[in-house]
Amino acid sequence: MTFDALWNDLLSIGRDSRTGGYRRFAWTPADLACRDWFTAAAQDRGLDVETDRNGNLWAWWGERAAHGAVVIGSHLDSVPDGGAYDGPLGVVSAFAALDDLLATRGVTPVRPVAVVALSDEEGARFGVACGGSRLLTGALDADRARGLRDSDGTTMAAAMAAAGHDPANLGADPARLAGIGCFVELHIEQGRVRVDTRHGPAFGLAGLGVPLGLAGGIWPHGRWRIEFAGRADHAGTTRLEDRDDPMLLFAATVFAAREAAIRHDALATIGKVRVDPNGVNAIPSGVTAWLDVRGADESRVRAVVDDLAGDLGRQRDDARVTEESWTPLTTFDAMLRARIARVLGDPPIIPTGAGHDAGILAMAGIPSAMVFVRKPTGTSHSPLEHAERDDCLAGVAALAAVVADLATDRNS
Amino acid sequence: MTFDALWNDLLSIGRDSRTGGYRRFAWTPADLACRDWFTAAAQDRGLDVETDRNGNLWAWWGERAAHGAVVIGSHLDSVPDGGAYDGPLGVVSAFAALDDLLATRGVTPVRPVAVVALSDEEGARFGVACGGSRLLTGALDADRARGLRDSDGTTMAAAMAAAGHDPANLGADPARLAGIGCFVELHIEQGRVRVDTRHGPAFGLAGLGVPLGLAGGIWPHGRWRIEFAGRADHAGTTRLEDRDDPMLLFAATVFAAREAAIRHDALATIGKVRVDPNGVNAIPSGVTAWLDVRGADESRVRAVVDDLAGDLGRQRDDARVTEESWTPLTTFDAMLRARIARVLGDPPIIPTGAGHDAGILAMAGIPSAMVFVRKPTGTSHSPLEHAERDDCLAGVAALAAVVADLATDRNS
Repeated sequence: MTFDALWNDLLSIGRDSRTGGYRRFAWTPADLACRDWFTAAAQDRGLDVETDRNGNLWAWWGERAAHGAVVIGSHLDSVPDGGAYDGPLGVVSAFAALDDLLATRGVTPVRPVAVVALSDEEGARFGVACGGSRLLTGALDADRARGLRDSDGTTMAAAMAAAGHDPANLGADPARLAGIGCFVELHIEQGRVRVDTRHGPAFGLAGLGVPLGLAGGIWPHGRWRIEFAGRADHAGTTRLEDRDDPMLLFAATVFAAREAAIRHDALATIGKVRVDPNGVNAIPSGVTAWLDVRGADESRVRAVVDDLAGDLGRQRDDARVTEESWTPLTTFDAMLRARIARVLGDPPIIPTGAGHDAGILAMAGIPSAMVFVRKPTGTSHSPLEHAERDDCLAGVAALAAVVADLATDRNS
Repeated sequence: MTFDALWNDLLSIGRDSRTGGYRRFAWTPADLACRDWFTAAAQDRGLDVETDRNGNLWAWWGERAAHGAVVIGSHLDSVPDGGAYDGPLGVVSAFAALDDLLATRGVTPVRPVAVVALSDEEGARFGVACGGSRLLTGALDADRARGLRDSDGTTMAAAMAAAGHDPANLGADPARLAGIGCFVELHIEQGRVRVDTRHGPAFGLAGLGVPLGLAGGIWPHGRWRIEFAGRADHAGTTRLEDRDDPMLLFAATVFAAREAAIRHDALATIGKVRVDPNGVNAIPSGVTAWLDVRGADESRVRAVVDDLAGDLGRQRDDARVTEESWTPLTTFDAMLRARIARVLGDPPIIPTGAGHDAGILAMAGIPSAMVFVRKPTGTSHSPLEHAERDDCLAGVAALAAVVADLATDRNS
């Protein structure tokens, strides 16, 4: 089975032997090894491989054309200590679906078909998610991208150059975008979203008892940087009443974020923290926290952030809340979704709080859709992330059926 | 004035041009540059320089003898983003005091005199404070020291070897220790400790209105590592009620530590934190915090830690509190202090919450004393750390008078 062979070849790349998690950050050796895997998989199938100006990888079945291509795929990079499925499942499934079409069905596409691995989706290294698709559509400015820095101070431009990719060519690529007829991203389900059914609420595909679903929309979400200022001082000699310790207001904000999320029925997370100078015997001079907020509509998300910023402002003049990114509610193309739903026998439609490249392309006007594969547990962005093999194979078959339908219809 | 020349030569080494703070961590290029400064200062004065097996630097005036040496000095390394005075003031003042004796007073010592720069006092890189003096006395085991790792995973052994110092020779050095007759460490005052006077409480030397003080004792203190376990998950798709987010219990512990410190009249600080995996869109799998606790007596310190550990244990089975270091109450030699007090005209005696090499040597039975130089503000371990030049010069004169007294008395 080609799925297993493809999957197993990828499995060891960038895996931490201690945690079992992955660290496949953009333009690191692990990412480059994933790119080599992509190239080899494409060449094994006689597909033409190219890297676009923004570092996205494309494997073409048939001539690349000026319009109408059916594009399937996802991304290969990971969050820190992430799971094996988030991203790679979509790329592996895309190649396996082509194998299915080539070997079994003998489908002859009348539209070009491509497998894509979009670059730097997680934004784990440079802080901006969906970097490859945002650059492609122009949603991320090339100069801003080049200047983004990782935690070691290395710019994206320098990291790309060191990996052999010329950063001078970054930027919106309207001709390539115009060539895409539609984009279908298969992805492991994340979380267990509430779905209301005739029988009452169910949670996720596991709760619904089905292997596959289609994406409804992507919740609006944003990232904010919160800076707590204080005064560095000696932990052993500074009386409690003389201290200006920013750790206290930071700790209060962790609770305030959780309470605001409950109040407004949204999600709020503080998952990244930097303490300066981060010495055992030093009262911090500052704490920086990153806040991630998402919700079913923009007003909930804004309400969480406004509550927090208001609280902070009442407590300190120098607390700063800076919006680092904002993604509005993303809706997917209704006609494409209806067509895929018909091919797949009306799988359930589920919304998601996670951002995806398919959402970026949808916002740029490309008809896009997402197929979700059931995750039996609630855990993602974690080494514990998992999908059953049978569900993965169902995903491959679904993707093959979708491509067979779309690629043989010149007018779709 | 030799003080200014020595001081200014050191000032640029390891300084961060952005914050004005210092990063002179053991065996880094900045530390090596400080060591070169020491060697040059000693050679300029015709002193014999040697590096002992543990990396401590010694500059000898007269023959190094088997016993009875009067040793003055401090350390040259810093905390992250530390100030210019903590450590270097004692070494600079020691050389300047010798200049004073050599040039002005024409003192002829009958005991050997040495200036010392003890290695790795802050423990900023490998986590163990007073590494050089602890190795010298045997309080730190050589194998443990060699295996300590910095945040990049580099061992102390590897760092020393890369800096040209053979780690194979680390370990207790009883012959060298036996040669030390007494140790006097001059140091900038830290914090503003409460001193009860006839007129009521005063805070620090600034409150008392005097430039110099003598150390009473060093408070017992310890460092504990607290590990908060959770489950990594996707920030955008995991419902609040499905989360096991360790950041919440960590935040509660920040407050609990402060409250326990108030309750037991002690100091508690959480100044170092590590979040795993530390991604903006990832619920952490774990948070590790380091707790520093100090107090006038051991029972207060233990009570703070016991309260916290009890709280945590009631909330989670898997929260772990590990003692990383413990230093009991340190008392200095009463006879040596009385003699110095007489020479200096009875300066005030002030206790301190900060650990020092003088405390390590005192615990090993070396008669030791500390002279504190007034700090006009309460801030230390910070780029804002400062002492007035006149107070520094008063410190040099005091050190010269103390050495003149001790080194000319064969029986002291």
